[in-house]
Amino acid sequence: MSAARKRKRGVVVLGSTGSVGRNTLAVLRGLEPEFRVVGLSANRSWQLLLQQIEEFRPSRVALADGASADSLEEAVLPDGINLLLGRAGVEALASDAGADFVVLAISGGAAIPAAVSALKAGKTLALANKEVLVMAGEIVVNLAKTHGAKMVPIDSEHNAIHQLLRTGRRNEVRRIILTASGGPFHDWPESRLRKVTPEEALRHPTWRMGQQITINSATMINKAMEVVEAHWLFGLDPAQIEILVHPEAIVHSVVEFRDGACFAVLGPPDMRVPIQYALTGPRRVAAPHISMDLADVGSLTFKRPDFDKFPALSLGYKVLEEGGTSGAALCGANEAAVRKFIEGKIAFPDIVDLVKRIMDKHTAIPQPTVEQIVAVSRWSGREVERLV
Amino acid sequence: MSAARKRKRGVVVLGSTGSVGRNTLAVLRGLEPEFRVVGLSANRSWQLLLQQIEEFRPSRVALADGASADSLEEAVLPDGINLLLGRAGVEALASDAGADFVVLAISGGAAIPAAVSALKAGKTLALANKEVLVMAGEIVVNLAKTHGAKMVPIDSEHNAIHQLLRTGRRNEVRRIILTASGGPFHDWPESRLRKVTPEEALRHPTWRMGQQITINSATMINKAMEVVEAHWLFGLDPAQIEILVHPEAIVHSVVEFRDGACFAVLGPPDMRVPIQYALTGPRRVAAPHISMDLADVGSLTFKRPDFDKFPALSLGYKVLEEGGTSGAALCGANEAAVRKFIEGKIAFPDIVDLVKRIMDKHTAIPQPTVEQIVAVSRWSGREVERLV
Repeated sequence: MSAARKRKRGVVVLGSTGSVGRNTLAVLRGLEPEFRVVGLSANRSWQLLLQQIEEFRPSRVALADGASADSLEEAVLPDGINLLLGRAGVEALASDAGADFVVLAISGGAAIPAAVSALKAGKTLALANKEVLVMAGEIVVNLAKTHGAKMVPIDSEHNAIHQLLRTGRRNEVRRIILTASGGPFHDWPESRLRKVTPEEALRHPTWRMGQQITINSATMINKAMEVVEAHWLFGLDPAQIEILVHPEAIVHSVVEFRDGACFAVLGPPDMRVPIQYALTGPRRVAAPHISMDLADVGSLTFKRPDFDKFPALSLGYKVLEEGGTSGAALCGANEAAVRKFIEGKIAFPDIVDLVKRIMDKHTAIPQPTVEQIVAVSRWSGREVERLV
Repeated sequence: MSAARKRKRGVVVLGSTGSVGRNTLAVLRGLEPEFRVVGLSANRSWQLLLQQIEEFRPSRVALADGASADSLEEAVLPDGINLLLGRAGVEALASDAGADFVVLAISGGAAIPAAVSALKAGKTLALANKEVLVMAGEIVVNLAKTHGAKMVPIDSEHNAIHQLLRTGRRNEVRRIILTASGGPFHDWPESRLRKVTPEEALRHPTWRMGQQITINSATMINKAMEVVEAHWLFGLDPAQIEILVHPEAIVHSVVEFRDGACFAVLGPPDMRVPIQYALTGPRRVAAPHISMDLADVGSLTFKRPDFDKFPALSLGYKVLEEGGTSGAALCGANEAAVRKFIEGKIAFPDIVDLVKRIMDKHTAIPQPTVEQIVAVSRWSGREVERLV
């Protein structure tokens, strides 16, 4: 084996203290002979970050929040570890010279500058963040091309498709089907949706996730975002992307090729499988503890999604039709509306209603800059404040 | 495009008048610009063969049955078509100089010499026949290696696995799961199985097939054969091959890799998809009429197979454990026992009981010749006659 092949590949984990970040570090623990953590970042959770620093010994870490950074500096940082500050620090880490992979496990539009930084530096960007592609899909796809960088999805649905595309060529794909658990309210009568409480909406049936993401799953606006992501990741037309309700969340996605062959990725909702594949693929490294028994699962059910009861489902197609900054309007409005719902200020169906109203009001700017995207996202959030 | 790429690839279809043969010709109709039928063979159905000759204009045809060949010769064969006679004729066709592909759609052990002939001539052998691998797996795998020939399975289950193996490397496979519809009696109490009539057993829930194959599906001995086939086709250990009951027959097979990633091939029971892929793979040619809607399917169920009620299920593992001629003993005994059952001479559970008794009586000959395999198969059939 040559020296070059023996060199450990460097990984920066942005958002290492969140759910995806922690799972990424769990995977990296198992890949130790091959990968090395060169950077970690968090927003506020400096105590957990300190634990991770002590275990993984990265050369550089970043904390976005100033007060948290002060606390971390007051604590005893191990020797030789460089602390970067603020969002600029996170961006600098994203282009770290020692990194081959940047795992983007920061949620929200705030992650866009870090994604841009990683792609400009030619890194392989393992994407767990939806907003980067929904808000800035065209920009990041073009940056990846220009700088010879790669994007690999970590999302279970898109990672599933990414793996399945090995069974055929891109232009042989007839359609892909994104499965949706349907959220906790899929079988509720439409009339009851107005009475959904934040507590009910925050109880997700299969995945444990952050609050915003859990509500996005309940409104099904997460599937709208995934439609946009699939378009940019795989170069598929909107008409080739479908949504199917599958409450058991065992089938993560389906790819149908033009010859009628149809493949599905099955598995328990375990983030470690897609995260590991994003790092090691196309090679597969043994993970003996992860397995599934279909006989235990017993039955898998599928039904067509209800676009009337869950109007969010059509919004991904709307974003792709309008292009430009329309994804930023969706994300900005949704983030603010979800916050209002969690605060008890608006009813559950108002979330998507507000998003639609703001998208309708917004005239998409074609081929926007990152600055324009961020501005539209902020404007949309302010519009939600104004309307509530 | 170079002249070499423009040359049509020649296909010989052995058993062209049976179910798989007719489906193969239906597929070849759609692949006309690229493939050319150079040979067809049948056993007795000379009239249908004549129709196929008129449509596809092969250069050579073979009829195994002498009387049927006489009838075909009396009919007006189109000019320039060479009629080969008997099994030797079928074998000659299998090594036809103009053939790139030989589709083996003849059932039973009688197909082994044709398979051997095709592999020795370096053809790509598209296998719809189970007995070739169950009885002579080691021989044909070695022949393929020696002569640079390829074997591609047409069976929906094995073709599914063949396609799925593109998502990883062979040594990355943790296990494969062969799905089984379970046959019409899977939910019957064991006590009722003795009363099963041939008419009941010949009503297969999902696939329309020949009588032998339909009964093999009802006893589930077809899964025993598929376990052996999977071993030889994919080089997997018996412990890596599992059977799962799946009555809807939509999931054709599952491959689980060592990283926990788990893939399934889904689709309606349509032979044309695997046949076409066997010919065009890894390329996928559009077949717009073949598609599946999981929302229409609604639900997929899975359960562990009952090895007590269906003792046939363990026989594939027994064949792999004993090796040599044990597969020939299984096939020979089963073919004869199924015939006895259809004739009303024995009860349904007696089929597998007889097969087991004869396998137990037989001492497997290691590394047998084709002649020894055929002899053991005949001996097993005679043993069934003797015991009934």
